Amino acid sequence: MSGDPRERLMPPLVWRQRAPARQGDALDDVDTPALVLDLDVFEANLLAVQQAASNAGVALRPHAKAHKTPEIAARQQAAGAVGVCCQKVSEAEVFVAAGIRDVLVANEVVGARKLSRLAALARTARIAVCVDHPSQVVALADAVRLAGTRVEVLIEIDVGQQRCGVPDAASALVLARAIRDAGPELALRGLQAYHGRAQHLRDPAQRAEAIAAASRRAADIRDALLADGHPCAVVTGGGTGTFRHEIASGVFTEVQPGSYVLMDADYAANEPDAQGPAFGQALSVLATVMSVQAGHVVLDAGLKALSTDSGPPVSMEPGWRVGSLSDEHATLLPAGGGRVLGLGDRVRLIPGHCDPTVNLHDWMLGVRALRIEAVWPVSARGAVF
Amino acid sequence: MSGDPRERLMPPLVWRQRAPARQGDALDDVDTPALVLDLDVFEANLLAVQQAASNAGVALRPHAKAHKTPEIAARQQAAGAVGVCCQKVSEAEVFVAAGIRDVLVANEVVGARKLSRLAALARTARIAVCVDHPSQVVALADAVRLAGTRVEVLIEIDVGQQRCGVPDAASALVLARAIRDAGPELALRGLQAYHGRAQHLRDPAQRAEAIAAASRRAADIRDALLADGHPCAVVTGGGTGTFRHEIASGVFTEVQPGSYVLMDADYAANEPDAQGPAFGQALSVLATVMSVQAGHVVLDAGLKALSTDSGPPVSMEPGWRVGSLSDEHATLLPAGGGRVLGLGDRVRLIPGHCDPTVNLHDWMLGVRALRIEAVWPVSARGAVF
Repeated sequence: MSGDPRERLMPPLVWRQRAPARQGDALDDVDTPALVLDLDVFEANLLAVQQAASNAGVALRPHAKAHKTPEIAARQQAAGAVGVCCQKVSEAEVFVAAGIRDVLVANEVVGARKLSRLAALARTARIAVCVDHPSQVVALADAVRLAGTRVEVLIEIDVGQQRCGVPDAASALVLARAIRDAGPELALRGLQAYHGRAQHLRDPAQRAEAIAAASRRAADIRDALLADGHPCAVVTGGGTGTFRHEIASGVFTEVQPGSYVLMDADYAANEPDAQGPAFGQALSVLATVMSVQAGHVVLDAGLKALSTDSGPPVSMEPGWRVGSLSDEHATLLPAGGGRVLGLGDRVRLIPGHCDPTVNLHDWMLGVRALRIEAVWPVSARGAVF
Repeated sequence: MSGDPRERLMPPLVWRQRAPARQGDALDDVDTPALVLDLDVFEANLLAVQQAASNAGVALRPHAKAHKTPEIAARQQAAGAVGVCCQKVSEAEVFVAAGIRDVLVANEVVGARKLSRLAALARTARIAVCVDHPSQVVALADAVRLAGTRVEVLIEIDVGQQRCGVPDAASALVLARAIRDAGPELALRGLQAYHGRAQHLRDPAQRAEAIAAASRRAADIRDALLADGHPCAVVTGGGTGTFRHEIASGVFTEVQPGSYVLMDADYAANEPDAQGPAFGQALSVLATVMSVQAGHVVLDAGLKALSTDSGPPVSMEPGWRVGSLSDEHATLLPAGGGRVLGLGDRVRLIPGHCDPTVNLHDWMLGVRALRIEAVWPVSARGAVF
């Protein structure tokens, strides 16, 4: 290549995006697109799940992969949550650094660098992790021994998700023995039994049936472990779509929903259970009309502000519907009866899927009565490894 | 809510994700998932487009929204690019801070805060921006006057994208007069004429036809501006799917492709033009096998490492195909003839769409001969406003 680009460029630039608003700003002054949390709805959702869990004597360990925001985890913990779930070691690092002292990495961790980081976290927090293969147990024990710490282990069982996890009691027993044989640095806590596919079954009867089957399988495997002399104090799982069934199962001792504090269009499409009311929509992306055309308007929020893997966002603006999305734009089409939208007008969009949408933003704005009450860093955004 | 979460939590935590590797590391030691750039392929792609533009006497202003990486912009500039396009003011801020001195925000900018930031950038760099409504001209002029700077303006015309832009010469003339009347702080540079939909037409004849029509419309509007006494030095547009046609049009003076240095599965699905060879796949996401099951394996890269808006990622591992993706996982299914994949094995995936995939990562690893030669911050990741 001709020329030396170093001559023309500053040193590698690690850039921190500024927040789109300051505490006290009016919602109308927020720079857009911005991730917005309706605090009244958020708090109601947070308390509803905590109460459901507490009333049943089941522990609540909310999944932090949904919100990635220590300020939210702290509020969940203050309300009674036992700690958080994370999905990645790098997420766990963020939440431990923020002061959370009980983290379950509800996932398998493979690779010496990752295991070494995980083992080191156990110096400052109670750490647990999942396994579904004996070689993971050996590698984990090596890393934990080297770090001089202690890590608890959950055996992930496949209860219908068809992703990770062992399929039956025989495989779980192999893992339980490997954990026991690994020495005192590992301790078996119990079973990870998450049924992701069941979360999005629209029919509440189908969700109930899926979790009934998952609970039976978890109970069988738990009993096999106990019969073989292993501990199994915890059976954990459940998400926003099904946690009421796990709570009522008599098998699950802990549930780990995450999206409920935020909510999204996909979860809102579930027909609600009889056991509890639907959650309110707390999360939205605030966007601005940046172009007005004959048959549509264009918003300044696209694929880099809203994930579309579970369907397009839904307009909160009455009389308008979302058309197409491109990298930095969304078109909004008249659907009848809406106000006239002009340049600079603000529209809120409900994300199709909250988790990957939150992961696109560095800041979450807590809003009450049209004012920015909180500006929270999404500290674990981008924590992919 | 019970308890004060502030008592249990550190101050708001702005966290910087560490890089997944260091310069000199073996590719096998990289923490995953990681965004990986094959430097040989990247450099070949970079030079191919620069040569095509230079040979035709057309300026190349690569779009930085694709790579978001100042180190790449610097290499494009060293090879002959005139500057960069950005899509957002916050992107422009990153590239100006990194030393790029000629930035076109190839988009409308609406809102007083954004316009004030844009106007301020013109203190250190040559800045241009697009308009498609007279009120944008007035607001821009106010902001630029207040900043005491000077900004160039392009009138965006709709040449088939059906998103932003004015539809005809009459509307463009209204804008040209508004720009002239705004005073000396604004100067009309010419026309922004980007046909995004044409980029992804699979049939090269259809792409050629779409850009022929776009060129005719741009020429007509340019001629109307000139006839009314306005300058129109630049007609700019074109993307990775069509830039050869804009270059050959005799109308476009500048092209702004972005994805070509990286490439993705969606662009690779275009049947190539006769005018030039297809680009090599430089970008991939490196993932690790984290669970091995009877009928599939699970990788540690999901929706938070790979965007799926233009289709799922494509496996670079022979004999395996991508099944489903969830937030943090991808399943890989045997497609016949592949090697046995075990825990810890590495697989590269080609993103369906490079722009939003890059936007998920804080770091891009430049690889040559299985070694990490460069660790570049994706400094404009998350620059959404």
